[in-house]
Amino acid sequence: MRLTFILILLMVMYTQAWGQGRKRVREYGVKVGVLPTGKYNTITDVAGVTVGHTTLLEGEHIRTGVTAILPHEGNVFQQKVPAAVHVGNGFGKLAGSTQIKELGNLESPIILTNTLGVGTAMNAVVGYTLQQAGNEQVQSVNAVVGETNDGYLNDIRGRHVREEHVLQAIQQAKTGAVQEGNVGAGTGTVCFGWKGGIGTSSRKLPESAGAYTVGVLVQTNYGGVLQVNGVPVGKELDQYFMNQQIKDSADGSCMIIVATDAPVDARNLERMAMRAMMGLAKTGGIASNGSGDYVIAFSTNPELRVPYTSEEKTQAIPILRNDEMSPLFMAVIEATEEAVLNSLFMAEDMTGKEGRKVEALPLKKVLKLLKKYNAI
Amino acid sequence: MRLTFILILLMVMYTQAWGQGRKRVREYGVKVGVLPTGKYNTITDVAGVTVGHTTLLEGEHIRTGVTAILPHEGNVFQQKVPAAVHVGNGFGKLAGSTQIKELGNLESPIILTNTLGVGTAMNAVVGYTLQQAGNEQVQSVNAVVGETNDGYLNDIRGRHVREEHVLQAIQQAKTGAVQEGNVGAGTGTVCFGWKGGIGTSSRKLPESAGAYTVGVLVQTNYGGVLQVNGVPVGKELDQYFMNQQIKDSADGSCMIIVATDAPVDARNLERMAMRAMMGLAKTGGIASNGSGDYVIAFSTNPELRVPYTSEEKTQAIPILRNDEMSPLFMAVIEATEEAVLNSLFMAEDMTGKEGRKVEALPLKKVLKLLKKYNAI
Amino acid sequence: MRLTFILILLMVMYTQAWGQGRKRVREYGVKVGVLPTGKYNTITDVAGVTVGHTTLLEGEHIRTGVTAILPHEGNVFQQKVPAAVHVGNGFGKLAGSTQIKELGNLESPIILTNTLGVGTAMNAVVGYTLQQAGNEQVQSVNAVVGETNDGYLNDIRGRHVREEHVLQAIQQAKTGAVQEGNVGAGTGTVCFGWKGGIGTSSRKLPESAGAYTVGVLVQTNYGGVLQVNGVPVGKELDQYFMNQQIKDSADGSCMIIVATDAPVDARNLERMAMRAMMGLAKTGGIASNGSGDYVIAFSTNPELRVPYTSEEKTQAIPILRNDEMSPLFMAVIEATEEAVLNSLFMAEDMTGKEGRKVEALPLKKVLKLLKKYNAI
Amino acid sequence: MRLTFILILLMVMYTQAWGQGRKRVREYGVKVGVLPTGKYNTITDVAGVTVGHTTLLEGEHIRTGVTAILPHEGNVFQQKVPAAVHVGNGFGKLAGSTQIKELGNLESPIILTNTLGVGTAMNAVVGYTLQQAGNEQVQSVNAVVGETNDGYLNDIRGRHVREEHVLQAIQQAKTGAVQEGNVGAGTGTVCFGWKGGIGTSSRKLPESAGAYTVGVLVQTNYGGVLQVNGVPVGKELDQYFMNQQIKDSADGSCMIIVATDAPVDARNLERMAMRAMMGLAKTGGIASNGSGDYVIAFSTNPELRVPYTSEEKTQAIPILRNDEMSPLFMAVIEATEEAVLNSLFMAEDMTGKEGRKVEALPLKKVLKLLKKYNAI
Repeated sequence: MRLTFILILLMVMYTQAWGQGRKRVREYGVKVGVLPTGKYNTITDVAGVTVGHTTLLEGEHIRTGVTAILPHEGNVFQQKVPAAVHVGNGFGKLAGSTQIKELGNLESPIILTNTLGVGTAMNAVVGYTLQQAGNEQVQSVNAVVGETNDGYLNDIRGRHVREEHVLQAIQQAKTGAVQEGNVGAGTGTVCFGWKGGIGTSSRKLPESAGAYTVGVLVQTNYGGVLQVNGVPVGKELDQYFMNQQIKDSADGSCMIIVATDAPVDARNLERMAMRAMMGLAKTGGIASNGSGDYVIAFSTNPELRVPYTSEEKTQAIPILRNDEMSPLFMAVIEATEEAVLNSLFMAEDMTGKEGRKVEALPLKKVLKLLKKYNAI
Repeated sequence: MRLTFILILLMVMYTQAWGQGRKRVREYGVKVGVLPTGKYNTITDVAGVTVGHTTLLEGEHIRTGVTAILPHEGNVFQQKVPAAVHVGNGFGKLAGSTQIKELGNLESPIILTNTLGVGTAMNAVVGYTLQQAGNEQVQSVNAVVGETNDGYLNDIRGRHVREEHVLQAIQQAKTGAVQEGNVGAGTGTVCFGWKGGIGTSSRKLPESAGAYTVGVLVQTNYGGVLQVNGVPVGKELDQYFMNQQIKDSADGSCMIIVATDAPVDARNLERMAMRAMMGLAKTGGIASNGSGDYVIAFSTNPELRVPYTSEEKTQAIPILRNDEMSPLFMAVIEATEEAVLNSLFMAEDMTGKEGRKVEALPLKKVLKLLKKYNAI
Repeated sequence: MRLTFILILLMVMYTQAWGQGRKRVREYGVKVGVLPTGKYNTITDVAGVTVGHTTLLEGEHIRTGVTAILPHEGNVFQQKVPAAVHVGNGFGKLAGSTQIKELGNLESPIILTNTLGVGTAMNAVVGYTLQQAGNEQVQSVNAVVGETNDGYLNDIRGRHVREEHVLQAIQQAKTGAVQEGNVGAGTGTVCFGWKGGIGTSSRKLPESAGAYTVGVLVQTNYGGVLQVNGVPVGKELDQYFMNQQIKDSADGSCMIIVATDAPVDARNLERMAMRAMMGLAKTGGIASNGSGDYVIAFSTNPELRVPYTSEEKTQAIPILRNDEMSPLFMAVIEATEEAVLNSLFMAEDMTGKEGRKVEALPLKKVLKLLKKYNAI
Repeated sequence: MRLTFILILLMVMYTQAWGQGRKRVREYGVKVGVLPTGKYNTITDVAGVTVGHTTLLEGEHIRTGVTAILPHEGNVFQQKVPAAVHVGNGFGKLAGSTQIKELGNLESPIILTNTLGVGTAMNAVVGYTLQQAGNEQVQSVNAVVGETNDGYLNDIRGRHVREEHVLQAIQQAKTGAVQEGNVGAGTGTVCFGWKGGIGTSSRKLPESAGAYTVGVLVQTNYGGVLQVNGVPVGKELDQYFMNQQIKDSADGSCMIIVATDAPVDARNLERMAMRAMMGLAKTGGIASNGSGDYVIAFSTNPELRVPYTSEEKTQAIPILRNDEMSPLFMAVIEATEEAVLNSLFMAEDMTGKEGRKVEALPLKKVLKLLKKYNAI
């Protein structure tokens, strides 16, 4: 154990010295929860899900971007997926929530961007959908767009996200490994006072629980008292909300996307979505007043697809029984916690608007603390 | 009574013959409910509320527009108003609902437009707010935009609403009489198979109930079985949902805005909002599957304004007791019913996209029916 | 038409003179809505649904009772049914709502009684369920009990409903015709200032819409401005809320039970439940502040039964598509409106606690009004 | 630090050897969160709140009880308090939630008991309220009763809770120290596989945040993967949900009561209630499918009392601004986490129905783990 730690520490110093990449939390030996991860430990472990980023870094003031999550590689409007939304704290501008709740499905890519870019992103999604082959008669599109506020580092009032950036994120969406940290919609975000960003993680249930996969992607931009797998990092580093020495508002937001291949309908997806806030809680988040904390959950299960039109009045679908939901709940909690940690571990220092600098989570100090608390 | 009817009939024939205006339902002698109206029988009877329209009528295919409702004439972002949203049926794209629900207030003008114009309208409201004097530091705006789908008459896929149209509706907003029928966001809508549009009405409570005013504005675009103050007009004219002879989907939507000067907080505003759907029900609406039926309610009471920033941690406010709410509930129901009828009575025939024609509610026939059923 | 009316009038005078029964609204020629009714025009037209009443009329002060609605004739705990609850106005004590919402199903008979009898009725339902064959290991039962307040006529503080009364209502539940008016949980209720009670109605969809049946049962105890199929009866008879001459609080409550054999899951059952409030609105109800207006909707479709235990993790079920819901929505609205009218038409004068008397809806006057307004 | 640990260990061994009391988690040196506690670190630190228990331990099979929480020492029906309910997971039988939500207030003591005792407890609360001086005319009472299922140790089907037990808990309610562990409604509960029970904790905000107090009381009966202030106790002791070696359902429930003296209305109390689930999450709870996780939050602030009747139509109240809520949110999270830990630390081994034994959290092992992970 001790040797492992020294090796990790050397690795960290080495990579930092060389300006090379940081690593995901699990690569440092941190095991969040008790369930195994999927292949890449990403939301894309859920078959069919793809993710694309557009990162906008220009001059000293543009630090923003777009992240697109697609539930499958077909025409999502024609083949909708069961979906649900949970509002952890509604100080935010999520577009599309009421239709998801009413109809129980999602008919567009999910776009994440900055607070003042939601209108533009909606326009892009509407345009994208209208122009897809097969949608020539479509006159109504429920564009789903979430956001967090990157206005500390980014010139958010300049409204630099354009429709082409959104389309680019959609077009570049792919399966496999997902970029994390200062990318896409996470480019300019701040979390627990350190640099936040995009993070992802997944869990794979055992055969006895259906062998389903749950994947989570987060855009982290919130506050509280950081805990890394139970270790009180925020408290130890004197960086936390209600610390009388500093003025940390704890505000900001968190968008959380939950995907699964389990055959779960909208009602149980909403229950899964609620559990994501429990994973966020374990990182020390408090869903502060000014936070827009939203969870969007969907199922990619092919048998649950909802065709836009159908000859049939009814659709026969296999639905997972309520009694089988608890393992999925636990998977959501674990994957959300780890996705948040990945966003912090992978984000790097950033300087932005008005010369403001936000430091990345100081890995050397954190690893020492993880060691001190026997967490690695 | 009989003489009155003949006079009214002559009046109708006369005005129609001359291509002049139609009249509001009450001017034909129809009295909806038991409460008196406000001065103009409009949402602007609630002191401070202003309404503006931009109507887009171009070529044979553009039949759309924008309606703006402002809760007061100051800076709404700096002086927010208590507000609530009720979702009667969520097949719609209303933007801004979750923040209203979480924080209990409204910080922007309310914009109504067509389904595919929501993103553009959000952008316009964000721009408008960022540029208002006093908002120089604002980085987050909850733009509230509702819509109905005017795609039967309007080239909705052409997305002809531009930001300038939205700004124009805001800038032209004024108190006093409100244009109804084929104007603003109601330019291209269809209701119960006839031409829908914008309608408004108000109620004034007696002194014993606080002398409060309730105003309602609707954008009507839905279906069912039309009843005019209880008279089965849809059934009599063989124009209704589930009529096996015709194919009426009953779909479409209805946006309903409720304003009051009563000192009512968000919780009781939500209860008022729910009652608006009961007024819609009395017109024969059914909140069909494809309908986006949303109600936004707000209080203009000056003592309940929510300042964006404040030196004080608490705000002392007078709140109307639960026990006093029933008269306000009834006022909402009555004003909503009458606002819908006004939208139908004031709308005129319209020809639009692909030469499609939607006739206005045939007043001559309707007045005969009202007479037959002794409703006038 | 005129002759029919005279015959009806003679019939009414005859039956009233002889103290014999009143008739249901449709038997007087009133046709609510456009859809046909089921066989008996009762909730029991939905196959499997049974209804039982216990009526408590003792001395001058006990005017209360119990009504039980069973979704099928088997063991409901072992074979749960999809269900949903909508809260129209939550000033009431409905037991069991949160579990229905969470799990999407109903596992007990639905009991209606008076406000202070809910605890006793829950105990009865728990006892009933624990003792059913097959439930020997059951340790958790979600008893669903609704109520309205009959304390104007009934010595409600005396708490005269006992567990045996509840069990009796369950045991006597049967299919076919349903007693209406002053029976069961409607024994002592008041509606629009006249005697309320139990009412029921149903609608049968055409083949093209699936040939499904929707049945509604109501316990009416609320106020507003009564309309009978659009005719302003309350206004004409000077008996309405906000009439400055009388002091009518409009308070009281309405329990509404909606049953269908359509294959509708919990999400769409909730949407159906919401529409019942639209039917109530058409009778002139306003969901006043003091009203406990709740709707419980369930599907009896055999393929949607939820077994308490199962070898299978998933259950394959045919679900009606969202697009097919509108006819069911309209059926709920029509059947609710007619069920309320039946409760009023069938209830008779009652004298109760402290010599208070509540008159039945004065049929002679009402029929004259229906005639005057050409509604019959 | 090391010396402290040895002293604590000796203390634990000593007290266990002598069969004497266990201690609360903080007394072992565990500091949950960053905020200070109130005087007793109990819900009764919120001025006016009182708690009473009735513990039923009879023969080998009765292991249940009742806990009553009163918001103030006056007549709660006549002087209601602002209140809200949050449903974390609704597999439970909480009575009274819909009226709290609709009216925004609480008008009865809050009773906690076992799942099948809710009806009896409602009856007791109704009787208690009807008989209180000043309530002679009351005809409607919203009894608020929560529960968890103690059927593993307790003969729950025997339904041993009687009305007198409920009344006794109400009458014995007092301020100051609160008994924890195997008492009242926590007598027979199980949590994370160990003996659960009643726990409580509080937080006191600094002057700069208003100096408000937040108190929490929990009835713990749920599962997951126990963490004690971040230390993975469940994982280390091989006792957790989804451990393939054991069959732990993770089911059961948690009732959480949140009290504050801050002037917070129903809308913001609901937001506080939501945060309690985040505190539960930090203990490793997952809100499993079979869990009834409910939070009831109320404010004792005297200026926010809601009189049953009033001469005034409006009530002037000081309301805490949204912007001031975040410290209260954090206080709820911290106090909930610590209250759960207290329930586990204070509960003792129990043998019950059918000779089943549930061991208390093994303090010696846990303290070793806390030491290993540097948490004390």
